Amino acid sequence: MATDVDDLVERVLSGDRRGIARAISLVEDGAPELEALSAGLYAHTGNARTVGLTGSPGVGKSSLTEQLVRTVRGRDTTVAVLAIDPTSPFTGGALLGDRLRMQTHATDPGVFIRSMATRGHLGGMALAAPEAIRILDAAGTDLVLVETVGVGQAEVEVAGATDTTLVVVSPGWGDAVQVAKAGILEIADVFVVNKADREGAGEAARELELMVKMGAARDVDWTPPVVRTSAATGEGVDDLWSAIEAHARHLEETGALERNRRARLLAEVETLASQRVRERVHAAIEADPDLAERIARREVDPYRAAALLLEGTEARNG
Amino acid sequence: MATDVDDLVERVLSGDRRGIARAISLVEDGAPELEALSAGLYAHTGNARTVGLTGSPGVGKSSLTEQLVRTVRGRDTTVAVLAIDPTSPFTGGALLGDRLRMQTHATDPGVFIRSMATRGHLGGMALAAPEAIRILDAAGTDLVLVETVGVGQAEVEVAGATDTTLVVVSPGWGDAVQVAKAGILEIADVFVVNKADREGAGEAARELELMVKMGAARDVDWTPPVVRTSAATGEGVDDLWSAIEAHARHLEETGALERNRRARLLAEVETLASQRVRERVHAAIEADPDLAERIARREVDPYRAAALLLEGTEARNG
Repeated sequence: MATDVDDLVERVLSGDRRGIARAISLVEDGAPELEALSAGLYAHTGNARTVGLTGSPGVGKSSLTEQLVRTVRGRDTTVAVLAIDPTSPFTGGALLGDRLRMQTHATDPGVFIRSMATRGHLGGMALAAPEAIRILDAAGTDLVLVETVGVGQAEVEVAGATDTTLVVVSPGWGDAVQVAKAGILEIADVFVVNKADREGAGEAARELELMVKMGAARDVDWTPPVVRTSAATGEGVDDLWSAIEAHARHLEETGALERNRRARLLAEVETLASQRVRERVHAAIEADPDLAERIARREVDPYRAAALLLEGTEARNG
Repeated sequence: MATDVDDLVERVLSGDRRGIARAISLVEDGAPELEALSAGLYAHTGNARTVGLTGSPGVGKSSLTEQLVRTVRGRDTTVAVLAIDPTSPFTGGALLGDRLRMQTHATDPGVFIRSMATRGHLGGMALAAPEAIRILDAAGTDLVLVETVGVGQAEVEVAGATDTTLVVVSPGWGDAVQVAKAGILEIADVFVVNKADREGAGEAARELELMVKMGAARDVDWTPPVVRTSAATGEGVDDLWSAIEAHARHLEETGALERNRRARLLAEVETLASQRVRERVHAAIEADPDLAERIARREVDPYRAAALLLEGTEARNG
C-alpha cells in the first residue's frame, strides 16, 4: 500500500493526468490512503491560485468557466477546473455533471477538467474540495477554477474557500434580496452579471453595486467590483480577468493572501480533527448498547451520555 | 447557580410558563446551565408527541399550525408550538418570526407558542430544537408542533427529528421535482397540499402520490398519505389530524416510535460529544500558534496536524 501511494505521489508531482485523476478519486471516496497522499504532497503546495465560481443554476457559470479557461490559456497559464456536484445527504446519489463538457479544451494538455462528488468522504465537500485543490496545486497547476453546480450552503462554503470568489448572477435570475438570502453576498470578491446583453442587466448590476455599498463584504479593504459579461460571446471576459488579477494584487499587497490561506487551513484542520473524533464517538456508541438502553430508560441524559462517551474514547485512544 | 437551575427545573416541571420561556432562552443562548437543566428534566421526558411541519415559505405552514392547534384544543390536548427561525451562518442574525402571531390562542393556558433561533448554541438548531422540545415535554405538554420557517437543510433536519413529519406544499409552489430537490420527500410521513381550493391542487396531489409510489419514504411499512387542506377555511384539517393519528398508531403498533426516538437520541449524543471535542480542538488551535506556523510553512500537513491536536487535547482532558 505504502509503495502504491509513494508511486501515486510521484505521478501527481510529475503532472501525470491519470495519476491526478486517481488521486482525486481517492479524495472522493475518502480512501484510507489519503493520509499518506496528503503527507507526500503537502510540501509541494501553496503555489496555485484558486478562483471559485458560484451562483444559481442557469446563470451561465459553465460557459463563463470555459471563457476564463480560454482567456488564461492565452496567457500561457495552466488551469484546472473542479466542477463540484454535492452529494444529496438524503439519497446518497450524486448529480454528476457532464464530464465531457468543455470539449474545446479536451485535447489541451494545459487544461485539466474534473467533475467531483463526495462518495465516501466523511467530511463532505468542505474537506474534499481543498484536498482535491492541493492535488492539482502539487501537480504544478497555475490556476484552479472551482465551479459549483448550484448555490446551497455546502457549495457556498466550497466556492468561498478560494483566494478569489466570483458570484455570478444573470438578469433573469432575480433581485438583490434573493442574492442576500442565498448567503452569497458576503463571500463575493467579484460580482459577475452574466448574460449582460439581456434586459435587466443594468438593473441587476446597479442592485449589486448598491448592496456592495451597504456593506457586508468579507474584506473591509476591498470593494467587490460588479463586472458585466456575456459568456456566449466572450464579451466582458477580459474585464472579468482584469478584476480577478486586481483582486490577486490586492491580496498580495495587503498580506491577506497568506492570512486567508492560513485561516482556511486551520479551519480545515479543526474540521478534520473533529471528524476523527466523531468517528470514534460513533464507534463507541455502536460498541455500547447498554448506554443506549440507559438513555432510553431516562437514566442518563444526553449531556451526561456525551461526557461518558468522551471519557471512554479518550481512555482508549489517548 | 445550582440553586437557580434547581428552581428553574421545578418551575418547568410544574408547567410555569415563564419558567418554560426562560429555559428555552437558555437553550437558544447555549448557556452553561443547560447541562444541569438537562440532568434535572430528562427523567420527566418521553411523554409528549412531536409533529414537525416543513415546506417553503408561503405555503401556509403558520395558518395550518394554527388550525391544528384549534383542532387538538377541541380534543382537550395541551399543545406547544415551536417556530424555528434558523440563524444565518453568514450574518449571525436571526429572522425572528412574529411572536405575536396566533393571537387567537394567546390567552389559552393550554397553548404555548414560541419562536426560536439559535443565538449561541454551538450545536445549532439540530441540538437546540430537541432540547427545547424536551423542556416542553417535561412541562407536561401533550403535543409539540415544530414549525420551520423555510425549508433549508437545517430546517429539514429539525422538522424531520419529530415523531411525525408533515411536508406542506401549495399548488402554486412548484412541481414534484422541486420537492425532490429540497430533500424533503424522504422525511415526510404525511404530505399536505394546502390552499387546496386553488387551481393545480389536484395535480400537485397526484404528483406527490406518484412520487410516494416511486419509493423513497423513510419507513418501508408506511405509505405517506397526501391530504388536501385549506388552512384559511379549516377545510381538510380534520382529515389531516386523522392522518397524523393514524401515523401515531402505526408508530406505536410497529414499535417504530420507540426505535426512532432511540435512534434520534443517540444521534444527538453523538453530535453533542463531537461538538464538545470540536470546542476543545478549537481552543487547542488558538493556544498553539506554533502549529499554525508549521502548517503554513508546509512542515506539517493537515492530517498530521489534526492527529497532533487530538493527542494534545486528549492528554489534557483524558
